[in-house]
Amino acid sequence: MAELSCLPTPSLVVDLNKVTQNCERMLQKCQELGVKLRPHTKTHKTLQAGEISTGNRKHGLVVSTIAEAKYFINGGFTDIIFAQPPSLNKVEVCTALVESISKFHMLIDNVQHLQMLEDTKLANGKQWSVFLDLDCGYGRTGAKWDSIKTFDLARLIHQSESVDLAGLYVHEGNSYNQTSTGDVTKLSDMTATRLLEFSDKLEKEGIDCPVKSMGSTPSCSLPTEIMSRITEFHPGNYVFYDLQQYYIGSCTLDDIACTVIARVIGHYPDRGHMVMDCGWTALDNQSQMSKCVTGHGCIVGEPNLRIDSMTQELGKISAINGKLDYEKYPIGTILRIYPWHACATASLHEVYHILLDGAIVDQWRPVKWWSA
Amino acid sequence: MAELSCLPTPSLVVDLNKVTQNCERMLQKCQELGVKLRPHTKTHKTLQAGEISTGNRKHGLVVSTIAEAKYFINGGFTDIIFAQPPSLNKVEVCTALVESISKFHMLIDNVQHLQMLEDTKLANGKQWSVFLDLDCGYGRTGAKWDSIKTFDLARLIHQSESVDLAGLYVHEGNSYNQTSTGDVTKLSDMTATRLLEFSDKLEKEGIDCPVKSMGSTPSCSLPTEIMSRITEFHPGNYVFYDLQQYYIGSCTLDDIACTVIARVIGHYPDRGHMVMDCGWTALDNQSQMSKCVTGHGCIVGEPNLRIDSMTQELGKISAINGKLDYEKYPIGTILRIYPWHACATASLHEVYHILLDGAIVDQWRPVKWWSA
Repeated sequence: MAELSCLPTPSLVVDLNKVTQNCERMLQKCQELGVKLRPHTKTHKTLQAGEISTGNRKHGLVVSTIAEAKYFINGGFTDIIFAQPPSLNKVEVCTALVESISKFHMLIDNVQHLQMLEDTKLANGKQWSVFLDLDCGYGRTGAKWDSIKTFDLARLIHQSESVDLAGLYVHEGNSYNQTSTGDVTKLSDMTATRLLEFSDKLEKEGIDCPVKSMGSTPSCSLPTEIMSRITEFHPGNYVFYDLQQYYIGSCTLDDIACTVIARVIGHYPDRGHMVMDCGWTALDNQSQMSKCVTGHGCIVGEPNLRIDSMTQELGKISAINGKLDYEKYPIGTILRIYPWHACATASLHEVYHILLDGAIVDQWRPVKWWSA
Repeated sequence: MAELSCLPTPSLVVDLNKVTQNCERMLQKCQELGVKLRPHTKTHKTLQAGEISTGNRKHGLVVSTIAEAKYFINGGFTDIIFAQPPSLNKVEVCTALVESISKFHMLIDNVQHLQMLEDTKLANGKQWSVFLDLDCGYGRTGAKWDSIKTFDLARLIHQSESVDLAGLYVHEGNSYNQTSTGDVTKLSDMTATRLLEFSDKLEKEGIDCPVKSMGSTPSCSLPTEIMSRITEFHPGNYVFYDLQQYYIGSCTLDDIACTVIARVIGHYPDRGHMVMDCGWTALDNQSQMSKCVTGHGCIVGEPNLRIDSMTQELGKISAINGKLDYEKYPIGTILRIYPWHACATASLHEVYHILLDGAIVDQWRPVKWWSA
């Protein structure tokens, strides 16, 4: 047990009560809708939050890197989707992962991917389990929901002897570009409708498609009626939430479970600002995109402070209205900052300092890098 | 020895010949001007590049974090400036560093900092060695060069029995905002003139100021005549250089010593793009600021490809002119990308894969995080 004020700066602090509450709410929401929750681990990348987010079942995750896949498998988790279309070298790495747990799923959207899987044999005649990555309008990866080619690819997967079609996977990342909860729900409805339209078509042709998965934190935080026809959600950011989600309308400011702490290290009254010992290496690698009046983040309990700019290890802070009261923030003052994008901020830290009821009680160490 | 094509993706690759050439050129430039070179380590954060950049003398560095300070001290380096105004907790950490090597310098710009140092006694009556952080127009940290208060602070440092004034330190970070080499040299001249004006004033009052240090990669890459009156330069980025420096005019494209490698993992001809297995966790946390026609970076040897956007682990690539030729880039194709800001990109990696004459010959492991 330590005081927050004893931590070195910059540090990432995670509020355990808030993580638990965010996870419980999402589990409950899914239960009410009759939808399975398969949390994405890319935001927190820790076994601890993995357990909390799966309701301690340690079953059913999405991962974004091979490093995450290995880490969660070694941590005892099963039923994992590696949510990135693979190149051959990654298919080869995945053979060991597929063979090590009962359910490890690949995501593919191209006949070249299917060919790679067919050409890469698994031990004991095991089949590859595959989700078809479906693009319902986001336009990043994924085969287009309304294309005949996509339907043909699904049929090829279905017909393949070495590959099993586990389901359809949609990431509606375009939900992040919405500026009102109404726009988010409209987008969710469109995504779900397109996903269901495609799966209905498959099922009519006798192609079984047991899992229909969609997910992004905005859409799953504000689920719509039609989304109850989807079989599973796979959001990830909601474990921490962040300012971006607050501005979209996915959460309240108080739901944000991670903050970066920093100290005031300089006063510059001739220029109207002060400087903290936290820059873009620790706070945010996307703060230029921040829409906050409080700049590159939001300092907890200090609505009149704005983080104007950041360099590698320093951040400039000024007053939004009136003059900055330097006496209120002597050199050494600790500031707690809500980040714009928690996925980006958390990815910059080796350690999360776990806050419980006002004290630092633990450290979580996320899995880092890509290939492990 | 390994082939580049055997590396997992994403990975950071550092060309050793280019690092050596960039370092030798800067050393030679300084020698010609009669200026000492005190390289900043914040970009590379490795003992290996520390050695090369100091001409193997392992003497005279600037560091941006306590972690870097400890790492380079443990690696046998001496004469190090911790280039961030400290809060009291960092002063306390620094006492051990000051006592461990002959020259470890603090950077201060406020009478509160001076007071902290005076209140924190060193063993054996050792004095704190201090650089006064001078703002010559950048406006981040630093006491203003033309303020009477700054002069008073210099006098207080000079008079203090527990603190020694080692010199003046200016970081002209505003050189990064210039868009032509002419603008950079104008800014360098202004910075140097202001620094010399202040130091002349001090010396007239009998306040000795042995070191006059300025530095940023744009200004030190294009040094002007008046800069030969400065006693030392402290640039850092030049060890790697990057697209930002290329656009400013500090280097050629071919001088850029670090690239991120990625593989093509998806083809989307209906949307005109392909996707690689590299997003903002590996390439760049500042790519939104990129001014390149080639988008969020520049793919080596592929002037017609543009990195349109990035998410956490994925990047979208399209053709600048005409249609993307998918047959030229089958899934699995390796792409090498010059980053926009090498300091940001390198800070995202645990390992640098060292390329020498076409083969991977070594791995360098930069010091990570902040407090060690």
